[in-house]
Amino acid sequence: MSNSPISSEQLLQQLNWRYATKKFDATKKIPEETWQTLEDALVLAPSSFGLQPWKFIVVTDPDLRKTLQEHAWGQSQVVDASHLVVFARKLEVGEADVDRYVNYMAEVRNTPVESLEGLSTMIKGFLKSPPYPMDIEAWTARQTYIAVGQFLTSAALLGIDVCPMEGFIPAKVDDTLELTQQGYGSVVLCAAGYRAEDDKYADLKKVRYPKSEMIEHL
Amino acid sequence: MSNSPISSEQLLQQLNWRYATKKFDATKKIPEETWQTLEDALVLAPSSFGLQPWKFIVVTDPDLRKTLQEHAWGQSQVVDASHLVVFARKLEVGEADVDRYVNYMAEVRNTPVESLEGLSTMIKGFLKSPPYPMDIEAWTARQTYIAVGQFLTSAALLGIDVCPMEGFIPAKVDDTLELTQQGYGSVVLCAAGYRAEDDKYADLKKVRYPKSEMIEHL
Repeated sequence: MSNSPISSEQLLQQLNWRYATKKFDATKKIPEETWQTLEDALVLAPSSFGLQPWKFIVVTDPDLRKTLQEHAWGQSQVVDASHLVVFARKLEVGEADVDRYVNYMAEVRNTPVESLEGLSTMIKGFLKSPPYPMDIEAWTARQTYIAVGQFLTSAALLGIDVCPMEGFIPAKVDDTLELTQQGYGSVVLCAAGYRAEDDKYADLKKVRYPKSEMIEHL
Repeated sequence: MSNSPISSEQLLQQLNWRYATKKFDATKKIPEETWQTLEDALVLAPSSFGLQPWKFIVVTDPDLRKTLQEHAWGQSQVVDASHLVVFARKLEVGEADVDRYVNYMAEVRNTPVESLEGLSTMIKGFLKSPPYPMDIEAWTARQTYIAVGQFLTSAALLGIDVCPMEGFIPAKVDDTLELTQQGYGSVVLCAAGYRAEDDKYADLKKVRYPKSEMIEHL
C-alpha cells in the first residue's frame, strides 16, 4: 500500500487555493519541469476501458493564441497565461481503436495479443450495443472531462493557476487547429500559469453549496 | 503565490500508483478523517460558472450495495470497497437554479444580490441560447466528470484506491436510489478503499499511449 505523500489539510488547502483565474501575470512562465509534469498528468488520466479517446493540444504560438482568443469572446487568459491546453475528444471510437489499444497493451505488457481477445470482444460489444443509450461523441466528451479534472487538481497541487473555459466556439477552434480532419473536436480550453497580483477574483470567497446538501448518505 | 506542497515526482508517483482497482480488501475501511477529506474534495470540485449541477450519494447500507451490485453486472467492487459514491448529474438547469446560486453567492460573499445581476443575466443567457448546440443533460454529465476526475486524483494523493465504473444500468440505479424524482441521474459509480493483496491488476503495467502521440504542440 502506498502511503500518502500529502496530508488531508495540504490537499484541501490547495483545492481551496485554486480558483478559475481571470487575470494571469503574462510575464511569469511555468518552469519546464513543472510543465512536463502536468503533461505527464494528462497522459496518465484515467478513462473508460483505458481507451484514452482524446488529444491535448498545447498552444504556445502567439498568433495562434490570438486567433483562439477571438473565438473565445476575447478572454485575456487565452493569450496571457503561460500555457494554453485545448482538450479535444475523439469524434469516433470503433473497432479499429479497440484493436490499436489491445495491440498496444500487448506490447506494453509483453503479453500475446491473443490473451487479450476477451477484453477486445468485451469493449467492442460495449461500443456496438451499449447497455444504455450512448452517443459516442457525448461519451468521449465525458471522458475528456476526467482529464480536465485530473489536470485542474494536479495543477492546484503544484501551485499552478488554471482557468478552465467552455466559453468559446468549438467549430472555430476546431478549424483553427485543424482538429476535425484529424478526427477530434475541442471541448475545453485550459489556460495555465500564475495569477496576476491584482486579479480581484483571487480573494473572493469560494461559493460551494453546503456539504450536507451536496452529499447524501444512504 | 502558493508553494507546492508536493514535488513533481511525488505527484507522478501517486498517479502511476493508482489503477482501476478490481478487487478490494473488504476488511479495510477508510479512516473517517480521510473520508471526510474526500467528501470535501468532491464539494470543492470546479464546474462551469460554479453551478455545481450534481449530487453525490455515499452508499454504506449493505443491502442497498447488494442491489446496486445487481445493476452493475455483479462487480464485486460495489460491495467490497470501503465506500461507494454514486455521481449524479442534475437533469435540468434553469433560471431557478441560477437564482438560487446567485442568492447563495451573495450570502457567502456578503454582497448585495443586485451587484450580481450581470452574472445572473449572463448565465441565464448562456443556458437559454448556448453559443453552440447544447443538451443540458449531456452538459451536466460532463461537469460531473470533472468531479470524478478531482475525486480520482485526490484519492490517489491520499493513498486511497478507487475503481470508477460506468458499467451499470443508470435507470436501475436511479430507481434504487430514487434519484429521478429528486431531479438527478446517475452517471458514474466510484468504489473507494484499499486494494486486495492478491488483485492481479495492481501489478500490470499502465497502458498509456506515448506522450508524443497524445500531446500536440503548436
